[in-house]
Amino acid sequence: MPDTETPPEGGAAHRFEAGLEKRAANYVPLTPVSFLARGASAFGARIAVIDGERRITYASLYDRCRRVASSLSARGVGRLDTVAILASNSPEMVEAHFAVPMLGAVLNPLNTRLDPATIAFSLRHGGAQVLIVEAAHAGLAARALGEMAEPPLVVAIGDGGIAGSLPYEGLIADGDPAHAWTGPGDEWQSLCLLYTSGTTGDPKGAVYSHRGAYLQALGNAVTFGLSGESAYLWTLPMFHCSGWSYPWACVAAGATQVCLRKVEPGEIFRLIAEHRVTHLCGAPIVLSMIAHAAPQERRSFPQAVRVAVGGAAPSSTIIRTMEEMGFRITHLYGATESYGPATACLAQPDWAALSDEARYQRMARQGVALATLDAVTVTDPETGEPVPQDGSRIGEIRLRGNTIMKGYLGNPDATGRTLADGWYATGDLGVWHPDGAVEIKDRSKDIIISGGENISSLEVEEVLMRHPAVMFAAVVSRPDATWGETPCAFLETKPGADVPSQDEVIAFCREHMARFKVPKTVVCGPLPKTSTGKIQKFVLRDRARELA
Amino acid sequence: MPDTETPPEGGAAHRFEAGLEKRAANYVPLTPVSFLARGASAFGARIAVIDGERRITYASLYDRCRRVASSLSARGVGRLDTVAILASNSPEMVEAHFAVPMLGAVLNPLNTRLDPATIAFSLRHGGAQVLIVEAAHAGLAARALGEMAEPPLVVAIGDGGIAGSLPYEGLIADGDPAHAWTGPGDEWQSLCLLYTSGTTGDPKGAVYSHRGAYLQALGNAVTFGLSGESAYLWTLPMFHCSGWSYPWACVAAGATQVCLRKVEPGEIFRLIAEHRVTHLCGAPIVLSMIAHAAPQERRSFPQAVRVAVGGAAPSSTIIRTMEEMGFRITHLYGATESYGPATACLAQPDWAALSDEARYQRMARQGVALATLDAVTVTDPETGEPVPQDGSRIGEIRLRGNTIMKGYLGNPDATGRTLADGWYATGDLGVWHPDGAVEIKDRSKDIIISGGENISSLEVEEVLMRHPAVMFAAVVSRPDATWGETPCAFLETKPGADVPSQDEVIAFCREHMARFKVPKTVVCGPLPKTSTGKIQKFVLRDRARELA
Repeated sequence: MPDTETPPEGGAAHRFEAGLEKRAANYVPLTPVSFLARGASAFGARIAVIDGERRITYASLYDRCRRVASSLSARGVGRLDTVAILASNSPEMVEAHFAVPMLGAVLNPLNTRLDPATIAFSLRHGGAQVLIVEAAHAGLAARALGEMAEPPLVVAIGDGGIAGSLPYEGLIADGDPAHAWTGPGDEWQSLCLLYTSGTTGDPKGAVYSHRGAYLQALGNAVTFGLSGESAYLWTLPMFHCSGWSYPWACVAAGATQVCLRKVEPGEIFRLIAEHRVTHLCGAPIVLSMIAHAAPQERRSFPQAVRVAVGGAAPSSTIIRTMEEMGFRITHLYGATESYGPATACLAQPDWAALSDEARYQRMARQGVALATLDAVTVTDPETGEPVPQDGSRIGEIRLRGNTIMKGYLGNPDATGRTLADGWYATGDLGVWHPDGAVEIKDRSKDIIISGGENISSLEVEEVLMRHPAVMFAAVVSRPDATWGETPCAFLETKPGADVPSQDEVIAFCREHMARFKVPKTVVCGPLPKTSTGKIQKFVLRDRARELA
Repeated sequence: MPDTETPPEGGAAHRFEAGLEKRAANYVPLTPVSFLARGASAFGARIAVIDGERRITYASLYDRCRRVASSLSARGVGRLDTVAILASNSPEMVEAHFAVPMLGAVLNPLNTRLDPATIAFSLRHGGAQVLIVEAAHAGLAARALGEMAEPPLVVAIGDGGIAGSLPYEGLIADGDPAHAWTGPGDEWQSLCLLYTSGTTGDPKGAVYSHRGAYLQALGNAVTFGLSGESAYLWTLPMFHCSGWSYPWACVAAGATQVCLRKVEPGEIFRLIAEHRVTHLCGAPIVLSMIAHAAPQERRSFPQAVRVAVGGAAPSSTIIRTMEEMGFRITHLYGATESYGPATACLAQPDWAALSDEARYQRMARQGVALATLDAVTVTDPETGEPVPQDGSRIGEIRLRGNTIMKGYLGNPDATGRTLADGWYATGDLGVWHPDGAVEIKDRSKDIIISGGENISSLEVEEVLMRHPAVMFAAVVSRPDATWGETPCAFLETKPGADVPSQDEVIAFCREHMARFKVPKTVVCGPLPKTSTGKIQKFVLRDRARELA
């Protein structure tokens, strides 16, 4: 993939090449940092970040980032050094997404829900020279640092009480607001490092580039309709895929980012009403929280609020309830490896003629490529060819484009496996619909084969989620002497709901699905979840085996 | 500006480089053609183009473009060959913006208002192998071709009656809808050639790249708020800077483009109401037409219509009248050299407290950088340093970024002069305001912008000097409510010569230049000169203003 135009050896340059080389005037390596420089120059007085009573303008945000960058630079942080951060959705977390790349250094946002050992692993594996820690997470940081022989320099946001730490506001105070950053010499340069919890083994560190983050920011803004009049509420943790690249997307669009430390329904409604929030992203649990908010927590608001949900499809009930409140839901799909959202379930012309129920079903699909993704496909695992767009043939969902990670840090084998054959192999199994939307039918491990029939655990879960008492449902395979495997359902019920009996749940399922798909076993109780709220199916598989 | 990561000689690669090279899965050269491929896959059933009774879906647009590309390929058109087009704002004009780049060929849209000699010059200079001509412009094309020793292959849209031409619909019928295009191997590859009328000498051909067009498309979409729910009305000629890059911007956003052959107020209102148009771009003449439409031509509409205006600032009267009708005006600034808009006069927080009149004055500024432009500055011509942002010191407006042209075709001297010192020198003189907006105070190049078309005063003067009675000629801009500006000629006649009438001078001009360049006002008398005999144009500009 050559990026310079050179004449064929010995020959003269083509007339559309000669004298038309890249110059400083017309070629600048792409970097999301440029969005902030432009924002500060173009609308410096506009509010970039709101956090409680704090208001940070675009000019001030740029000023603070340049100060942090110059102070880190004075302490020896430079090109391709790693700066980790353990923080909530705070202004400092937004700042880190610009100040660190400004130095050509690599930002490594850490999941605050992880255990100390995993944090320590990430710091060691990523080679962090600096760890920025918010006071609220100082305890976790101290325990992680205690496990390290050579701990990084610690910068403390607020009063964290970590021995030997530098105060973050000191970096600001001592820093140079005119710090002359230069941007990466090469837009392919590494920008971010995000550890993703695999199903087995150590976490893998997905590496982003300046180019990818710049393009994903624009792709998000165009696809989700962010503009200078938008206010974006941070319900999604910024340590997830760098907040799906929204710290950069919001700044590219000139929007206002509203911080939220603790995701609670009352606070979400208050901020939406108070700051005229127009956009938010989150996991299904956030939507569930909003939809089931108590009357005294709710606030009405005149604007439409666009909600992007990823991780699992929103249920009919959630969509209906939230649409009635003034929310507009879009289901997204992506991964840490794809800078967050790669596909979005965009409205199709024929939706207008659908019943609400049919429309909700369509909205649950993973959808179509974002504007900046090159392509999405569904590949037959046998032939390697795309499956027909018939909505029924199952294959692996694969993605390709500039918004796919560079690879996993220090893990060429995993990189090679995951980015083989010109595609990022997601490992998710799905179908391709005639209208172009892809739909996940199961993660490759989650297909249950019962009596020779394939059962998608997801499909069974969707039905279970419609039961009025059910908050979370997980279906796994249970070994069975007769059928090979049978579906086993684990249910967590809504607070205050009556726990249904197994017979009642089975009867409910029989009304809504083919007989062979109905769970043979139903267990109610709290579900085991990861720090990021993902249900730990491997734990449930073990339990199901014990039941057999 | 290296774009590949290579380890330092003899050393091992850095851990953020090793095993993280570009791959087909994560690196794709940017090209605006990819937006159409994605649109066809993501929302094939959505309407991409409306033209009278015709409706072209995204799937069908992609299909047609692939057919045209395959047919042109079969006739030998390939990488870096030139395909010129002389057409109105038609579906075929949109198609050309994708079908030609699909081949790696260069599209050369021609201004249908030019004279045959200038058209012939462009065809020769650009080395056009193919000229696509719409029937309405067949006469002009035939006269231009008549001046050429080796005319290109002609493709006729509709029944043009040009001898030896191929029918465009034949290219579609014979073409392959599955044509496998590959995109450019290098995103810096040339994509478009746009001739711009300079102040002296022959027109210069500004060359665009795939990378630049891709980024400008996204920059337009983000800055102007284009989305999948937008309908864009084509009041701006698509031959102007490739329609300010909107053919690509609309497709990137998944919007619908509404064609308009003849810009008339009744038709504009009808299309806005009928197709729920949300966006349009145009010269001040278009806004003037809308604001002054007769009552029977007007239609009311429920949606807000965003209007981007470039070429000259909209007047207070125009803004007020149009805001009352439901339009929202944004003033843009740019040039052929910057893929269309480079800056936009975005709303600032303090506008809310301004009186309408004060706000209209702010809105007349050229504004701030688009999201995808790296920077705008105002440079002191003496020192080469930025002027202070005080709103009074005058300097040259300069632009830098990936959305600046590669250069002028076959004109390294002009390219070198224009893109020197890391900036594109616009030649426009202006001030820099404290809020970041730039504002033009004068044009250094004597360009008059009338109805959105650039007129070189020098070119008009050259023609006037050929009149037997004229000794000195000076042409300046005269403010005009309808056209923004019109050319105003001041003539000093030879001693003893009969002073020609205005009508006579105008008739003389019409024989020798394109209609839109002909002066609307002619004043005869002694010209004010400096002691060294230089004509004092600033005195004449004042006189012209008084005539207005």
